[in-house]
Amino acid sequence: MSQIEDTIRSIRPQDQSWRGKARARLEQLTMPYWALGRLMDLAEDLAGMTQSLRPPVARKAIVVMAGDHGVVAEGVSKYPQVVTQQMVHNFVGGGAGINALARQVGARVLVVDMGVAASLDELVSGGKIVSKRIAPGTRNIARGPAMSREQAIRSIEAGIEVVEEMGDSVDLLGTGDMGIGNTTPSSAIVAAITGCSAAEATGRGTGIGDEQLQHKISVVGQALRVNRSDGSDASDGLDVLAKVGGFEIGGIAGVILASASRRKPVLVDGFISTAGALIAKALAPASVEYMIAAHTSAEQGHRLSLQHLGKRPLLDLEMRLGEGTGAALAMNIVEAAVRILTDVKTFEEASVSKAER
Amino acid sequence: MSQIEDTIRSIRPQDQSWRGKARARLEQLTMPYWALGRLMDLAEDLAGMTQSLRPPVARKAIVVMAGDHGVVAEGVSKYPQVVTQQMVHNFVGGGAGINALARQVGARVLVVDMGVAASLDELVSGGKIVSKRIAPGTRNIARGPAMSREQAIRSIEAGIEVVEEMGDSVDLLGTGDMGIGNTTPSSAIVAAITGCSAAEATGRGTGIGDEQLQHKISVVGQALRVNRSDGSDASDGLDVLAKVGGFEIGGIAGVILASASRRKPVLVDGFISTAGALIAKALAPASVEYMIAAHTSAEQGHRLSLQHLGKRPLLDLEMRLGEGTGAALAMNIVEAAVRILTDVKTFEEASVSKAER
Repeated sequence: MSQIEDTIRSIRPQDQSWRGKARARLEQLTMPYWALGRLMDLAEDLAGMTQSLRPPVARKAIVVMAGDHGVVAEGVSKYPQVVTQQMVHNFVGGGAGINALARQVGARVLVVDMGVAASLDELVSGGKIVSKRIAPGTRNIARGPAMSREQAIRSIEAGIEVVEEMGDSVDLLGTGDMGIGNTTPSSAIVAAITGCSAAEATGRGTGIGDEQLQHKISVVGQALRVNRSDGSDASDGLDVLAKVGGFEIGGIAGVILASASRRKPVLVDGFISTAGALIAKALAPASVEYMIAAHTSAEQGHRLSLQHLGKRPLLDLEMRLGEGTGAALAMNIVEAAVRILTDVKTFEEASVSKAER
Repeated sequence: MSQIEDTIRSIRPQDQSWRGKARARLEQLTMPYWALGRLMDLAEDLAGMTQSLRPPVARKAIVVMAGDHGVVAEGVSKYPQVVTQQMVHNFVGGGAGINALARQVGARVLVVDMGVAASLDELVSGGKIVSKRIAPGTRNIARGPAMSREQAIRSIEAGIEVVEEMGDSVDLLGTGDMGIGNTTPSSAIVAAITGCSAAEATGRGTGIGDEQLQHKISVVGQALRVNRSDGSDASDGLDVLAKVGGFEIGGIAGVILASASRRKPVLVDGFISTAGALIAKALAPASVEYMIAAHTSAEQGHRLSLQHLGKRPLLDLEMRLGEGTGAALAMNIVEAAVRILTDVKTFEEASVSKAER
């Protein structure tokens, strides 16, 4: 736990003085007041996070955390569990959605085995993925806890380590996930932390029909009852993660905490990543100040999570893939926000007349 | 008129067979069905526009049309008219919002003098901007028509020429505008074409207060009455443009028509650009199939225009700057949509299992 505690202790709020400097400049740019709206809000945030009027964002990475879930035994997903490992191979081969979108924005894709239910040794020894494997998948949350408290700690530490190991080679991070069945633990986390019902927290994941959705809601409800994660211990992020979480979700929480401790902005992808963000917030409320909500997922429960985090996403394109695709796409918006700070002249610099009234 | 007629005649609807080919591939990609939502819709559109499964979008240009407006005599803007020419210099110097955002996405910025109320000869002879100057500003629409019908034709032709002159050196276009006072004629166009009231079509532009807004609404209403552009001749795009439009708005309509005739996608920026799009649609309804609505402007009246065009914008970031800034930012989304078509493998190509149920 000491690595997590050290990380949490080193998280500082955004720097108000750098926010103020950014705002002062943004208000003087050659355009009507705050005419670039949320791009300017974001620019101010980035200055507050990075303590700079030229927030570094050039070196970008999407961390795709992969893990399997015992709860797939309950028939909550449309896809077989083997797809998790197949998609890890697809990420390595460069043919998945996240590869395409990361390439568009010039971001590196780092795939981490947090606990896939298959050996990925060949990919690890070949340096294609990083192994932080906790166990070959969680246990079935409908029957008991997903993992031990020790494993929950390890999964968060793994996420922290990934960021530490990248060190200063990366400026801007994005979270991603892969794990067949992982909308189910994510829904359980959302219900446990926000206090909403299983039905409100649960959506169609990879695209299940009405009947399977009802079943999935009942599985989420059962997971909450069996584990007594019904909101009573919502402030204990580790407990929620251990009881109804997943290894990759813990890893995502760790990536967020470590990014915040290093004053690096971190783009939080969709529903699963936001479940990781809820865990991070429960452990370290100030970490929220380094999170940028990338997009509104089509997945139900995502909006509730975003409300809990107090975040408004940058994009809303009905995406529901995960993998970090929304985070990668939103990195363009972050780059654009930085450009507003660095490339636009003030009225004085450009000799443009100001408003008359 | 024959150049406009030729352009309109050569506009074909999107190619349904290429849309079908794109859809067939998109449905087989290694992800849950249509899991990238509107990115996939856009990819299908791009295939239909360009008749390709690898829609070319690498060479990008934002055309910033600049012009002045006689109606500023009515006190509708917060900024003095001289700002139009000052901002043209700022564009050339690379210090405006559009320069920053075009740089981020790798787009060229082409500035066109459509009728700025000052000599820009030095910039023209230096090759810094293109001159298609119709006149040094429109006449005051609150007192009579903005321009003659002949000038309206010339302004649309100028936009067509700009695209023709770029020829095959550009794949993806975006529209932009600069013109102090130009939300006023844009509001009048929106009211004339959609049939909404002056109050519904009129917003705060560069940020005017309540009193000035009421005045602006009355000026728009007067312009519609004086010119009898009250919806009765809405189908005559040229008439609306001549009576209550602007040179840069006609230029934008021309850029859209020429892009459509060359099967090139064109990103329509915010409120002023959308007024140009309304003129283009009135002249050639099929041109709508090549328009991509970039973003939802904070300017009132924009939503009504988008409804009339049947478009849902890609971004909603409370931007209200114009210049083509929304179009430039949305070019990232267009690039991402193309990447989905070109870079993502199918289930078969990647040996990934399909859904079980």
